[in-house]
Order: sequence, then C-alpha cells, then structure tokens
Amino acid sequence: MNTTDIINIIGTAAFAISGYLVGFRKRLDILGVVIVALLTAVGGGMIRDVLVGQIPQVFTHNTALIVIFITLFTAWLLRLHTRQRRALATLFIVADAIGLAAFSITGAQVGLGLDLNVFGVITLGFVTAVGGGIVRDMLVNDVPIILRKDFYGSIAILIGAGLYLLDRLGWANAFTLNLLFGLGLATRLLVHRWGLGLPGFQNHGHGTDSNIPD
Amino acid sequence: MNTTDIINIIGTAAFAISGYLVGFRKRLDILGVVIVALLTAVGGGMIRDVLVGQIPQVFTHNTALIVIFITLFTAWLLRLHTRQRRALATLFIVADAIGLAAFSITGAQVGLGLDLNVFGVITLGFVTAVGGGIVRDMLVNDVPIILRKDFYGSIAILIGAGLYLLDRLGWANAFTLNLLFGLGLATRLLVHRWGLGLPGFQNHGHGTDSNIPD
Amino acid sequence: MNTTDIINIIGTAAFAISGYLVGFRKRLDILGVVIVALLTAVGGGMIRDVLVGQIPQVFTHNTALIVIFITLFTAWLLRLHTRQRRALATLFIVADAIGLAAFSITGAQVGLGLDLNVFGVITLGFVTAVGGGIVRDMLVNDVPIILRKDFYGSIAILIGAGLYLLDRLGWANAFTLNLLFGLGLATRLLVHRWGLGLPGFQNHGHGTDSNIPD
Repeated sequence: MNTTDIINIIGTAAFAISGYLVGFRKRLDILGVVIVALLTAVGGGMIRDVLVGQIPQVFTHNTALIVIFITLFTAWLLRLHTRQRRALATLFIVADAIGLAAFSITGAQVGLGLDLNVFGVITLGFVTAVGGGIVRDMLVNDVPIILRKDFYGSIAILIGAGLYLLDRLGWANAFTLNLLFGLGLATRLLVHRWGLGLPGFQNHGHGTDSNIPD
Repeated sequence: MNTTDIINIIGTAAFAISGYLVGFRKRLDILGVVIVALLTAVGGGMIRDVLVGQIPQVFTHNTALIVIFITLFTAWLLRLHTRQRRALATLFIVADAIGLAAFSITGAQVGLGLDLNVFGVITLGFVTAVGGGIVRDMLVNDVPIILRKDFYGSIAILIGAGLYLLDRLGWANAFTLNLLFGLGLATRLLVHRWGLGLPGFQNHGHGTDSNIPD
Repeated sequence: MNTTDIINIIGTAAFAISGYLVGFRKRLDILGVVIVALLTAVGGGMIRDVLVGQIPQVFTHNTALIVIFITLFTAWLLRLHTRQRRALATLFIVADAIGLAAFSITGAQVGLGLDLNVFGVITLGFVTAVGGGIVRDMLVNDVPIILRKDFYGSIAILIGAGLYLLDRLGWANAFTLNLLFGLGLATRLLVHRWGLGLPGFQNHGHGTDSNIPD
C-alpha cells in the first residue's frame, strides 16, 4: 500500500462521513443515509473514470466499498450524528476538506498516468474532488457547496496544477505528495475560518454560513 | 432472439409509448413527440454504455430505432393520445412500469457480462431503468418521476440485486429472468395502486397523484 | 491542415469569444472569464468524446488550448468587451452561430469516422455543437440558449443529417463541407434576425430578445 492508496482511503472515509452527516441532517432513513454516503465517496471517482473512457474502479474493486461500510458502521457505533450542532459542523467541514485535498491529488495522478496535458490533469483532479460533494448536495436537494463557496473548486485546481508542476520537475514523491495534501487541507480550512471568497468574483459574504444550518 | 432481447424490445416499446404520451400531453409538435419518445426509450441505455466506456449500442445497432418507429406509428394509427384521460393515465403507468422492470434486468445483465461487483451490477441496472424516464421528464421540464416517487428507483435496485444473487447462485436462466421481470412489474404497479412511499423517507402523499395531470 | 481542422479552429475561436463576452457581461474576474471561455470552447467536444468512450482530445492535444489563449489575448488587446452594447450583442450572436455550425460538422464527422448510424452521427454533431453553449450558460447561471431558442438545436440536427446524407451519397468533400457550414451559419443568423421559433412548438416570442441584456 503506497502513499496514493492511503490518501485515497482517507479521502473515501472522509467523504463517506460528510455524506453520513448530511443524510442524518436531512432525516433520511438508514438506506437513504447509506446511499448518500456511498455516492459522496465514490461519485467523483466515477465521473473521472467515465471522462477517460474507463470502467469505474468502484465497479470492479471492492476496497472503497469496504472502507465506506467500515466507516459508516464506526460512525454509527460512535453515534457521530448525535453530537451537538457545533461539533457536527466542525466535523463536516474537516471531513469535507480532507476529501477535497485527497481526491484532488489522486484524480490528478490518474491524469499524469495517462500522459494528459496540464488541462487534463487539472480537470481530472477537479472532478474527482468536487464530483462527490456535488452528487451529495444534489441527492438531498441542496445547492452544491461548490456553487456557494467560490474558493472551494480553486483549491482543487491549485492542487492539480501543483502536482503537474512537481511531475514535470521530477519532484513528485511521497514527501511532496503529503506536503501538497497538507497545504491543500490547510488552505481550505483557513479559507473557511476567514470566510474568504475569490477576490474579484461576486462574493455574497458566505464567511459566516454553516453547512449544518438549522 | 433470446429472452433478454425480447425483454429489451418490450422495454423499448413501452418507454417509447410513455414518451409519446408525455409529448402529446405537453402539446409538442410531431418532431418534438418523436424526439421525446426516442430519447425516453434509448436514454437510459446510452447512459449505461457511457458509464462503462462503450459506444452506445443505439449508435451502431438499428434494432431499437426500428422498434421505436414501429411503436410510434402504431400508437399514432391507434390514436392512443385521443383516449380519455383516465385510460391514458393507466396506459402511461403500465408502459412506464414495464420499461422500468425490463431495463433494470437488461442493464444489470450488461454489468454481469463485464464481471462487475454487486455495486456495478445494481448501478448499471438502475441507470438503464431510470435514465430514460429522467431524460423524458427533463425534456418537457417536469420534475423527474424518480424524485417524486421514492419507491420507483428502489424497484430498479431490488431487481439488480436479485439478478446479481441469481447469477452468483447459478440460478440465472430464462425462467428466473421472466419471474424477476414479472415480480418487478407487479411490485411497481401495486406500489402505485396503494400509493406507497419508502417507509421512513419524507413522504408527501404522492399516492393519489396522476402522471397525466390536467 | 485540412478543411475540418480549419472549421474546428474557427469554431473554437468563435465559442471562446462568446464565452469571453458572457464572462465580462457577468462581471467575472479574469480567472472566471478564462474558465468560462475555455469550457465554452471545449465543453461540447469533451461531451462528444466521452459519449464514444474516448479520452477527450483536449486532454492530449494542445491545439485547441493554444487557439483559445491566442483568441482571448487578442480579444483583450482589442478590448472587445468595451464596445457598446449593440455591437457586442451582434458580435455574440455571430460568434455563437459560427461555433454552432462549425462544431455540428466536426462532431458529425467523428460519428462518420466511427461508422455510426444516422442517429449516432446526428447526436454527436448535436452535443458537440450545443454542449459548449449549455456549459457556458450553466456556468453563469443562465437558462441555456438552447432551451430559450427552439430553432437553435434544430440547426445542429439538420447539419448532422445533411452530412450523413452527403457521406452516403459519396458527396462529402471540402466544397460540400464549406457549403454546409455556410448554409447552417446563414440559417442561424436569418432565424435570429426574423425571430423564428419552430412552428407548432410553444413559442413565447423570443424574436426580440438579446443575449446581451442589460
């Protein structure tokens, strides 16, 4: 199991938790919660695989499915969804940010493996990272987080561009991947904390909103 | 021509009729009715083929297109769209239910043929079955039936899971396929008749609504 | 460089300009304008490639990306976006019409190259031509032009059908391709000028609306 596998598993578990929390917030039954968590965790990867004409990995490999069910069972044992609102909101943001950073990297890596140009590498990182969250929000009829938070998708783009650059320079290795993952995660959390939008875009002051509204 | 081919043709004709009825209800012109009927009948299969990286069958094989045009011509000769509202509503529900059951089976079979895991088999059955109806409803700016009727998609999921199980047990044959088709069809019609939603989900009492509103 | 390549480059540049104008109209920042222009120009082709299970050309070939950036830089040097409203509206309509006609042809040609049937050829021409405009309008939260203007998509369908017929008759060559391109472009511009909808469809009198509203 290499660095990419581990980053992938962390992202899968994190997006499964974000889907689990959204499912409970929307008062879905157990089947509904499982479906939302499942598709949040694998949706982005499926879109990425379809984009390059491959059978979605999750259709043939069971790793992601096993990770998701262990995560959901653990979350349920720990009764994550019964914590108070403030703790839940923080947990959701952190899990979502981990998934965003992790899948930006693994998606961009698929592009590098296929010898795509910089546009292809960034696009694959982007759809892998934001696809799951978009599917999650659409399944529960929310406006997707990426349409509400301008800087969200930009982080996926920056990570993809960073990885492409590292690869061209011959500097892509376990250490720089972890560094990129940490930088992306930190940026997302700081942007959330400081309530930043992308300068110049119309920013309607999203800084104070919570993803776990009442 | 084997059982699958026949089920596929029945599903294609049924979805073409459901699209034809919706097109007339929305007062489209002839070209509009043909386009809606065509895409209702082939939309789900196209999404399925794209999902596994294959050129859509309907792009290279003419069977479905021929079935659709014969169906539409017959429907028009019989002046199906001039029947009274109550008969039309019943016809729409039955045709849509036949398409749902038929395409759940043929979609799941594509997954089995590609050696996919249970998630892949269910997903292919699901998108083949519900894709056409979603395309139909979106083309005429309706809220897709699957978002209005919670139990609709569940039937596709149950059929996909059933077929996967039959295949694993070595029990998949013409008889069990027909049985599964009949069971799925009967379930959908009974659910409609009894006005059931999925227990535990928010059910806004869809039991009495008709798909052919005034 | 053959006729198809040239038509493709013209379409790419035209759609990039239409995206550039929409981006400025919506007061996006520079990054936003570039993204909208880029995806308008390559979105339709990406959807086409995904539909036939191929890696999107733009992920591996840089020609389109170079054309787009030269176009955007030139547009910016010429300060296209500062012209008065009336000139902008005309420029947008012409650029969009050129893209529509050009991509209908190159999309349909991909279908002919893959030996698809008439449905496949028309569908590929259609998605290549209208995909970019739909992506553009969705990115800036507009109702896609194709949903507002009934005759818009019909032109893509007619061009695809025309090219299929030319190919079957053995009449497809540089001259007839250019003729088809010119005919499609002229039809779109005349339809716009005369404010036509498709007869028989519900037409809400779009004839006087501008795509560059205040």
